[in-house]
Amino acid sequence: MSFLRNCWYMATWSSELEPAAPMARKFLDVPVVLFRDSDGVPHALLDRCPHRFAPLSKGVVNGDILTCNYHGLGFAGSGACASNPHGPVLRNMAVPSYAVHEAHRAIWIWMGDQDAADISLIPDFDVLEVAPDNAFSCGRIHSNGNYELFSDNLLDLTHADYLHANTVMGAQFATVEVKVKSTDDTVSIEYCFFDQEANILIKDLPGVPGRIDQRSHLSWHAPGHMILYIDFAPVGTNDLSNSLRFTNIHCVTPETATSTHYFFASSRNFLTDDAVANQKIAESRLALFENEDAPMIEAQQAQLGTRTLWELNPLSLKIDDAGVRARRILAAHIKEEQATSKNKDILQLV
Amino acid sequence: MSFLRNCWYMATWSSELEPAAPMARKFLDVPVVLFRDSDGVPHALLDRCPHRFAPLSKGVVNGDILTCNYHGLGFAGSGACASNPHGPVLRNMAVPSYAVHEAHRAIWIWMGDQDAADISLIPDFDVLEVAPDNAFSCGRIHSNGNYELFSDNLLDLTHADYLHANTVMGAQFATVEVKVKSTDDTVSIEYCFFDQEANILIKDLPGVPGRIDQRSHLSWHAPGHMILYIDFAPVGTNDLSNSLRFTNIHCVTPETATSTHYFFASSRNFLTDDAVANQKIAESRLALFENEDAPMIEAQQAQLGTRTLWELNPLSLKIDDAGVRARRILAAHIKEEQATSKNKDILQLV
Amino acid sequence: MSFLRNCWYMATWSSELEPAAPMARKFLDVPVVLFRDSDGVPHALLDRCPHRFAPLSKGVVNGDILTCNYHGLGFAGSGACASNPHGPVLRNMAVPSYAVHEAHRAIWIWMGDQDAADISLIPDFDVLEVAPDNAFSCGRIHSNGNYELFSDNLLDLTHADYLHANTVMGAQFATVEVKVKSTDDTVSIEYCFFDQEANILIKDLPGVPGRIDQRSHLSWHAPGHMILYIDFAPVGTNDLSNSLRFTNIHCVTPETATSTHYFFASSRNFLTDDAVANQKIAESRLALFENEDAPMIEAQQAQLGTRTLWELNPLSLKIDDAGVRARRILAAHIKEEQATSKNKDILQLV
Repeated sequence: MSFLRNCWYMATWSSELEPAAPMARKFLDVPVVLFRDSDGVPHALLDRCPHRFAPLSKGVVNGDILTCNYHGLGFAGSGACASNPHGPVLRNMAVPSYAVHEAHRAIWIWMGDQDAADISLIPDFDVLEVAPDNAFSCGRIHSNGNYELFSDNLLDLTHADYLHANTVMGAQFATVEVKVKSTDDTVSIEYCFFDQEANILIKDLPGVPGRIDQRSHLSWHAPGHMILYIDFAPVGTNDLSNSLRFTNIHCVTPETATSTHYFFASSRNFLTDDAVANQKIAESRLALFENEDAPMIEAQQAQLGTRTLWELNPLSLKIDDAGVRARRILAAHIKEEQATSKNKDILQLV
Repeated sequence: MSFLRNCWYMATWSSELEPAAPMARKFLDVPVVLFRDSDGVPHALLDRCPHRFAPLSKGVVNGDILTCNYHGLGFAGSGACASNPHGPVLRNMAVPSYAVHEAHRAIWIWMGDQDAADISLIPDFDVLEVAPDNAFSCGRIHSNGNYELFSDNLLDLTHADYLHANTVMGAQFATVEVKVKSTDDTVSIEYCFFDQEANILIKDLPGVPGRIDQRSHLSWHAPGHMILYIDFAPVGTNDLSNSLRFTNIHCVTPETATSTHYFFASSRNFLTDDAVANQKIAESRLALFENEDAPMIEAQQAQLGTRTLWELNPLSLKIDDAGVRARRILAAHIKEEQATSKNKDILQLV
Repeated sequence: MSFLRNCWYMATWSSELEPAAPMARKFLDVPVVLFRDSDGVPHALLDRCPHRFAPLSKGVVNGDILTCNYHGLGFAGSGACASNPHGPVLRNMAVPSYAVHEAHRAIWIWMGDQDAADISLIPDFDVLEVAPDNAFSCGRIHSNGNYELFSDNLLDLTHADYLHANTVMGAQFATVEVKVKSTDDTVSIEYCFFDQEANILIKDLPGVPGRIDQRSHLSWHAPGHMILYIDFAPVGTNDLSNSLRFTNIHCVTPETATSTHYFFASSRNFLTDDAVANQKIAESRLALFENEDAPMIEAQQAQLGTRTLWELNPLSLKIDDAGVRARRILAAHIKEEQATSKNKDILQLV
């Protein structure tokens, strides 16, 4: 399986990476160690000491240096060897490093050509940064399913009517027309509802009307960053632009061809200082993803095995439009990247 | 590994398949979902929605329709699509279906050429049907051993003298001559004992004499259906045709090349209304199969790995006669079927 | 992966193999059953009945005969069939056997050309035999790491400074020069310390001074037998030849290319009748190996997968000298053996 390498992937939520606690995580089949230096700045190295291949994630952070816990070689965040208790420090003692950047309450990693890592390409998820603590939650699930199955899942919200029938509300998305738009790099979907019952997730929140108008708008961009706006207001509100809004982020980062780090977050523009509501929303969402989405996607993956979706010749339905557009965009990007790839050296190291 | 496809396999005991509860079970490497319609009639479909390959066994049965729990496509027992919430129902939306038939307290499945499925070919296990509830028990073990190893095991009852020495009775079958007979489709074995101690399994049952004459007769037919009659009577009874009789059924259905659904049942013509004896017999048998037979067969399989028995060049003993005849019959059937196979389409779908 | 076959490997500590209790253990990818005959003499056979491949380790020992628990073939320690309940005993019913010899509180096995098994080649670990019971302990860890990684680990004791920093003492071995010597068959390392703090493992033992002079000397010989002398005495003792001494044995026996039976023992010439100290030393050592060494080696193996160390082009440090010499010696032995191999028949049987 090929991955898009010259792009930013979410590596971890900021809150997951604590000081002086190196973290092992695999991205695109590459074992990586993440750690913070003495200023809290995150770094990412190949999680494999060049000496005898001990995982550096089993090591110790002292100041800015990550020291291998097997024979004591120390490495800076740049990957350069910083200390060798057994002789001189030489140039060839470096370990591959990967560009990382902390933004929007997350740490982003660039696994491809390191010279091309441009932080202006990090997804504009400012909304996460400005969210008050009591109107924000985030989480991560590790799942044994391919990351594109997660994008497919979100790019067709009709799945909620069935998979989440008892936890969201049953027939809803499948009852209206979806508007699909796309560019060379993005795909968006929009569903509008009028005069419908508030769903299970929101109906008991303070201030939410019993019946609402709602607009759900999700946009995807390659390789797998999604932002979902759910706007709703009392029935009859013509303009939803000043309505109650959930802003939900979903990012899928391939661990391997058949497993995914699925990151998600939620913020909102109402009940922004209600810790109880915030907790309840976080728990409901996590339960949905853990108990309903991830198991279904893992079941799909189990059917696929090592085959791609296309190899099994799936039946096409109208609802697949957005997901298929996203798959085509990503496939085109990967094809283009492979035609011009400069990052062969890094690939061969691992 | 090749399987015989144009034949009936036991899919499940009737009692295992409850109304409105789809059941996932793999046969011959094919994932299958079994479910009952509103009349209780069983159906079997490929356990893979043609849309995005969600397992239909995670779906919901409403009336006669099994609805996929991912995006809501509904399927009839025939495999035809019965409902599509996202557009028209088209012919190409069908999922492969497999003939099933409920008989003899079990559900039988035909995994091969569906036009050839002939219920008159279902093994004549009428005896199960007529057994009173208190003279009947059945069960199933899933085991990581090839199904032919299970047939081998039963077609040479001398194994009981060693493997079941402490739970049946030790030296017994190996002390007498076995009569082996075979046809193009069947193999049978018969052991006769005179004036022997009643074994552990039966000696404490009410009315069983301390010393008995006994005849054990097992017949196998392809692909792996076996019926074992154990007749016994007080010492000196010349004719065992009106004796006490256990009628035991053993059916082995390949899940994969290295795993098996092992089905077994027992009925008898005495103590037919003794629930306590019935329970005790059921528990003793299950314990034998679970603790002694299945672990030994799994240990054989572990030694074989992905190799066949013949590839390891086994030492031949006289006791292998019946098992080897059965293996040859089955191999001939498979060879013949493959020479004339019409079921390529189904195979390619999966 | 190739192993050196014509050599002795430690198969088990004597205390692990009880009378009448056959033990399954895999060596060099070969499943072996070990058992003691009626005189307590150990024997080793291929753990696979030639009839239907049941593991003989599931069998029963009667006198000198190991009887298969599936159909009752009995085998002598020589591998010859000793009883067949189903017909004559024939020459071709034998199972491969492996030379074993009990010495130094252990049982040693020769997996190669059986004619070449020469007990004078068993490592001279007499020291284990003469150790009083209260000055001796031994153990075994099964680990999913290649056996040469275990030798590497011990042939560079600087690892202790990092891996065992909190359980031994931190910076120690890396602070002094190591003396490395080798022959065609052996490698030795020696570290000397003067006026250093007694480490965590020994400092609380009765009679151990607070500051000591110490010499650690480890010698390895192919395929993976190591003896480590740790001599120490009060600061200023010029001659350590009559000092306090630990004599520690480490033997690594490949189970497969990626897993190892790691055997270790410790004896000493002081506190020789202190059961409490003996127990404490045994527990500390086991904890080190189980919690620190084995997990690190398994982590290395996980990075290597099925690749050898050299395939990943490791960075060479001065501290690798001894380990690399040992690897070269072993590789030369294996190459030589393969050029002149007589044991192809045995290999093909398995």
